[in-house]
Amino acid sequence: MKTYEAVGVIETLYFTVAIEMLDEMLKSSNVEFLRKETTLGGKLITLFVGGSVSEVSNAIELVKKLGEGKHINHLKNAIVISKPHPEILKYVISSEKIINEETLKVNN
Amino acid sequence: MKTYEAVGVIETLYFTVAIEMLDEMLKSSNVEFLRKETTLGGKLITLFVGGSVSEVSNAIELVKKLGEGKHINHLKNAIVISKPHPEILKYVISSEKIINEETLKVNN
Amino acid sequence: MKTYEAVGVIETLYFTVAIEMLDEMLKSSNVEFLRKETTLGGKLITLFVGGSVSEVSNAIELVKKLGEGKHINHLKNAIVISKPHPEILKYVISSEKIINEETLKVNN
Amino acid sequence: MKTYEAVGVIETLYFTVAIEMLDEMLKSSNVEFLRKETTLGGKLITLFVGGSVSEVSNAIELVKKLGEGKHINHLKNAIVISKPHPEILKYVISSEKIINEETLKVNN
Amino acid sequence: MKTYEAVGVIETLYFTVAIEMLDEMLKSSNVEFLRKETTLGGKLITLFVGGSVSEVSNAIELVKKLGEGKHINHLKNAIVISKPHPEILKYVISSEKIINEETLKVNN
Amino acid sequence: MKTYEAVGVIETLYFTVAIEMLDEMLKSSNVEFLRKETTLGGKLITLFVGGSVSEVSNAIELVKKLGEGKHINHLKNAIVISKPHPEILKYVISSEKIINEETLKVNN
Repeated sequence: MKTYEAVGVIETLYFTVAIEMLDEMLKSSNVEFLRKETTLGGKLITLFVGGSVSEVSNAIELVKKLGEGKHINHLKNAIVISKPHPEILKYVISSEKIINEETLKVNN
Repeated sequence: MKTYEAVGVIETLYFTVAIEMLDEMLKSSNVEFLRKETTLGGKLITLFVGGSVSEVSNAIELVKKLGEGKHINHLKNAIVISKPHPEILKYVISSEKIINEETLKVNN
Repeated sequence: MKTYEAVGVIETLYFTVAIEMLDEMLKSSNVEFLRKETTLGGKLITLFVGGSVSEVSNAIELVKKLGEGKHINHLKNAIVISKPHPEILKYVISSEKIINEETLKVNN
Repeated sequence: MKTYEAVGVIETLYFTVAIEMLDEMLKSSNVEFLRKETTLGGKLITLFVGGSVSEVSNAIELVKKLGEGKHINHLKNAIVISKPHPEILKYVISSEKIINEETLKVNN
Repeated sequence: MKTYEAVGVIETLYFTVAIEMLDEMLKSSNVEFLRKETTLGGKLITLFVGGSVSEVSNAIELVKKLGEGKHINHLKNAIVISKPHPEILKYVISSEKIINEETLKVNN
Repeated sequence: MKTYEAVGVIETLYFTVAIEMLDEMLKSSNVEFLRKETTLGGKLITLFVGGSVSEVSNAIELVKKLGEGKHINHLKNAIVISKPHPEILKYVISSEKIINEETLKVNN
């Protein structure tokens, strides 16, 4: 599994807001899109990006400004986790896809 | 994976409203229907269309007018993303179907 | 895939209300039941029927009268889409079942 | 697929309330438990039973009395559908399990 | 399928509350943990335990006292079903796991 | 299955808050991340960690302080279960992944 010096996590209401913020982060900063999470309900979507501390910090700052510039700010949270514990990386990247692969391997 | 000059994303309450808007977009503009997302809860549905910047912009403008013409406007968001970052296209089109295919391939 | 001259879509709170309306539509009009959607949350259920413009219109009118005749009207939306764009038919009928079939075929 | 002269459908908040009502229906009336639906959200659960018109009517009357006898009545709806349209039976009984069987058969 | 003289069902908001109550029931009473249900939404979780009428009744009484002893009582319902109808046992224990097994068997 | 002297369980609104708390627990205490649960709805996420009674207690105390130090405290619950009943461990660790493995084994 690839590791990242920092992980950025944003949570916003509405898929449109999330995709607009992701597009801006990817165009303006050297971060990678890691995963989305849409199962918490209440119209909430969570996005994870990874990269260097400075690049992830830039991306998260940009997202905060984008949210504040809107008539209604649907952004709920935007954080940077520096030097995440290895379990966090597993936790962030580990989607259902990964779990299914492991499950199938165990049963072969 | 096919690429698009622009991606349009709309979010509305109610499936009926979404399907009526999609039908109007497809009949009036040269856009393709890419994907729907229905997992965020709270009666929300998200639709993605792709095409040229002008065609997607036309479609999104039409949707906004349709919403404003209703007694209650259930449309929550309608955006155009021009020249989306390649990861966005992967993110938009990548449905569960795509993920399952990849998972199965890895395990063959 | 079969095509329909018109598609009717109703959205109501509660499964009981939906099934009662569907039974009345099927008994009174020459329409076919196409699909249900129950993933939007908030107790909402969406039903799709197909047929000729006049038969689908009759069914949708009946549903509206049924809703208005109740102490509390749980019907949220009831629409007719005439001559739906072919993508709409694919969108309406395409359930998870269809997607799974395709996924499995791709991997054989 | 087995057919039933009548189908009873109840909707209530809370699984405990649903299971208590189902136990009473099955002990007091000659009805069969057909299916449960728990995907609509908002703590709602829907139960389907089948049998003769008189037995299903007895079961549904019992459920209404049980609800009214409680400090808070969590029962939202309880209906009898007499001589349901054949599509309704397919719609009621057709759970994910049935769909999966068909999907797998198609791909063998 | 194993049968039980009685089934206890509790419903509470929050997973933490549920697991604390389950631990207390299992440590204090001779009951078996049968299944959890987490799909109804609204932060609700349902737990099922089985055993003799007296042991299940003890467990359910304990849970009620635990709930009443808290600053905020998140316990919504706690019931004992004595001599449950056989269909109830099938309904309680029958989780997705069981259904999947049957589905796969049918297709072998 | 591995056993733990104690299990810590926290419940918070928002994925960002959960991942920040998990990172702090893993960096400051000798606990293992066991599982997350995101199906209860209402923006709630539940995390499970395991370890010795003292290490899990340290981690849970830290999480409470983190929550109290925020402008809005999204942490809803944080508990330590000492010497959990063996069924609790099975219940905590048993994710869908485990169930799928067992299901597949039964059908081989």
